[in-house]
Amino acid sequence: MPHLTTAMVGPLHELEQQMLSHQARIEHWFRCQWRATPPPFYASVDLRNAGFKLAPVDTNLFPAGFNNLGAEFHPLCVAAIQNYIARTNPGLERLLLIPESHTRNLFYLENVFQLKRLLELAGLDVRVGSLSPEVSAPTAFELPSGNRLVQEPLVREGRRLRTDGFEPELILLNNDLSGGRPEILENLEQPIAPPLLAGWSTRRKSMHFAHYRAAAKELAALLEIDAWAIDPEFRKCDRIDFMKKSGLDCLVKNVDETLDIIREKYREHGVTRDPFVVVKADAGTYGMGIMMVKSGEELRDLNRKQRTKMATVKEGASVSDVIIQEGVFTFETIEGAVAEPVVYMIDSQVVGGFYRVHTQRTDEENLNAPGMHFEPLAFAQSCVLPNPQGQPDDCPNRFYAYGVIARLALVAAARELAEMHKAQPF
Amino acid sequence: MPHLTTAMVGPLHELEQQMLSHQARIEHWFRCQWRATPPPFYASVDLRNAGFKLAPVDTNLFPAGFNNLGAEFHPLCVAAIQNYIARTNPGLERLLLIPESHTRNLFYLENVFQLKRLLELAGLDVRVGSLSPEVSAPTAFELPSGNRLVQEPLVREGRRLRTDGFEPELILLNNDLSGGRPEILENLEQPIAPPLLAGWSTRRKSMHFAHYRAAAKELAALLEIDAWAIDPEFRKCDRIDFMKKSGLDCLVKNVDETLDIIREKYREHGVTRDPFVVVKADAGTYGMGIMMVKSGEELRDLNRKQRTKMATVKEGASVSDVIIQEGVFTFETIEGAVAEPVVYMIDSQVVGGFYRVHTQRTDEENLNAPGMHFEPLAFAQSCVLPNPQGQPDDCPNRFYAYGVIARLALVAAARELAEMHKAQPF
Repeated sequence: MPHLTTAMVGPLHELEQQMLSHQARIEHWFRCQWRATPPPFYASVDLRNAGFKLAPVDTNLFPAGFNNLGAEFHPLCVAAIQNYIARTNPGLERLLLIPESHTRNLFYLENVFQLKRLLELAGLDVRVGSLSPEVSAPTAFELPSGNRLVQEPLVREGRRLRTDGFEPELILLNNDLSGGRPEILENLEQPIAPPLLAGWSTRRKSMHFAHYRAAAKELAALLEIDAWAIDPEFRKCDRIDFMKKSGLDCLVKNVDETLDIIREKYREHGVTRDPFVVVKADAGTYGMGIMMVKSGEELRDLNRKQRTKMATVKEGASVSDVIIQEGVFTFETIEGAVAEPVVYMIDSQVVGGFYRVHTQRTDEENLNAPGMHFEPLAFAQSCVLPNPQGQPDDCPNRFYAYGVIARLALVAAARELAEMHKAQPF
Repeated sequence: MPHLTTAMVGPLHELEQQMLSHQARIEHWFRCQWRATPPPFYASVDLRNAGFKLAPVDTNLFPAGFNNLGAEFHPLCVAAIQNYIARTNPGLERLLLIPESHTRNLFYLENVFQLKRLLELAGLDVRVGSLSPEVSAPTAFELPSGNRLVQEPLVREGRRLRTDGFEPELILLNNDLSGGRPEILENLEQPIAPPLLAGWSTRRKSMHFAHYRAAAKELAALLEIDAWAIDPEFRKCDRIDFMKKSGLDCLVKNVDETLDIIREKYREHGVTRDPFVVVKADAGTYGMGIMMVKSGEELRDLNRKQRTKMATVKEGASVSDVIIQEGVFTFETIEGAVAEPVVYMIDSQVVGGFYRVHTQRTDEENLNAPGMHFEPLAFAQSCVLPNPQGQPDDCPNRFYAYGVIARLALVAAARELAEMHKAQPF
């Protein structure tokens, strides 16, 4: 189990202790949330554990690291997929998986291969249909693992989508639509999971963390803890143009106000470190368009290269909305390298996770950057099983706490999608 | 993985191969069955693998070996319990577990302790309420594992059952009611799982295997295999009195006719062993009231001790209805001792299993007898994950086949309970 390199583990142990003693109430609370707002098909949550604070820093509705999940989690994944199908469409047989279009990233395609395999082990007929113009005929990709992944071109007839000789009853997106919503997926008869509105062309992190704030308050009240221990401060600025340097006043003001709030809390909680905030695109992924700052002024002095980096994200999407989020240290290390846990969920079930590790980054930097690697060993026990007889920071109890916070972010994602669906059904 | 001590593995490999190539259809078939007839809370199935035949020989709706399940299966158990609750009663918080009343069997109480722990890990408040008159106040039982199990007396007020200061919303029976249906459990407001009619005072193995026969036919047609490969021949005789030797003609006739049918099938399939049949109480458990015979005449020559053994089962219940079932060899051995797999299920999910092993019994005898022991190691991989790229008899593929046949028996149990419920709602 990763080493926690901070003396400030007291609050974390308190949080874990509260979770252990309220476990029945926590699980009951989650069941009631899922009854009110069903969870999306899958999600992954990046957590940061600062000892005095345990919080999600990102919730991805198109998880792309199934190849990093240890084999011991596959039975849980298959069981969770089967439960999702039994709950939403028991008669389902054929599923079409639509991945990202970057066909040269073999590491990503390993993820697609593994996801396809888990869906097949759950008893589905699965084909992979690509949005990429490069895939104009069934194309086999030979992967580093020795596996082979075939991707096929998509064919649309009326309001039905298929590949050659295969008409799916469910379309599963592993493509976060950073480049926008493709016309071929609009207004289809077949259901799409997660829905198109979950893609980054419409989804906003600020909306997610607003829902997370509300859910964290509810759970904090249940656990009789200070919601601050699990909820990162955040603000949002619109109409930012990094290249033209317009909108910087809003950014600078919100960065400094957020830092002030954090400083106050740090004083209250005896945290001696300097606070930092993360400035990132309100719609973005792959760790792009992210920077950590310790004062608003730093944003005024960005050079052209830094501004360009902040101005565009995946697939060239330009950045205008920005979220300013409390920076949460990660005090976990694996063999001396800084690490942060990533928890995977399918339906409402935590199905495993791994650590994102970076040997060249510090505990207050973004680890989702070139040079990172993954440690599948991390979750020795799934996050499902606390050990009430054990010490708070026993491995199962730390990972159970991670599973609770990750599911809290999942509740926020479910509510976020429900709100977006009400506002704009497709 | 247990060694299969038979040359006749061809048919088993064919069966496993058919299951692998029809996996999507199998899982889809099961999903449709559960939608039509929901599964009971839990069940365990004793399987026998004769190489040319893989069949269930008993389905227990009150499994009592949770302490034999390896820890690696606990996450699956907890996830399955959570799914059962989410499907049947998401608001559930308090559960009362009612075990068997034999309070001196500490090995059985280890099972109760483990089941209680899994229910708690699933997020429930759990208490154990005993039907035993010996438990007149909260009583702590110190177990060989070092754990402590507290059992409390039951208190009934009107149509509500509780223990002191704890009113459950669900009552879970781990007591098979061999001694009859206790008045205190009749006509309660709180739901009881499994229902009282699932107890041995009303349930009959012959009804179970009649439903199993129908389900096996359906699955065999789907798999394009001979249903005989997965379905043990059986007959039933009523109004038997072993002590007065009345009803023996029916027994002798049905034993010999069953043996004739099996011999014919053995000739057809090139099986060179002598067939045998199992004569057992139509309502019974714990391996009591069971004998293996190779001719009807053997039943006429039973001595007094043998007749007494056949005449009464658990808790002194007398035997009048008898099932005659095709004997299925078990060609699996662990370190030279004969073994048979026991598969555990919660809700519709296979959650693990173990091997019942007996060093003093042969491959055509009842292993559920004093001197047996359990090998929790057995199911290296849960029965959920076949390995389509592997050989048919690779470990995952053999256990996947076990999981399919065990779930087939679960479908039969679900249909059996539904039929009994229609005939007699409580």
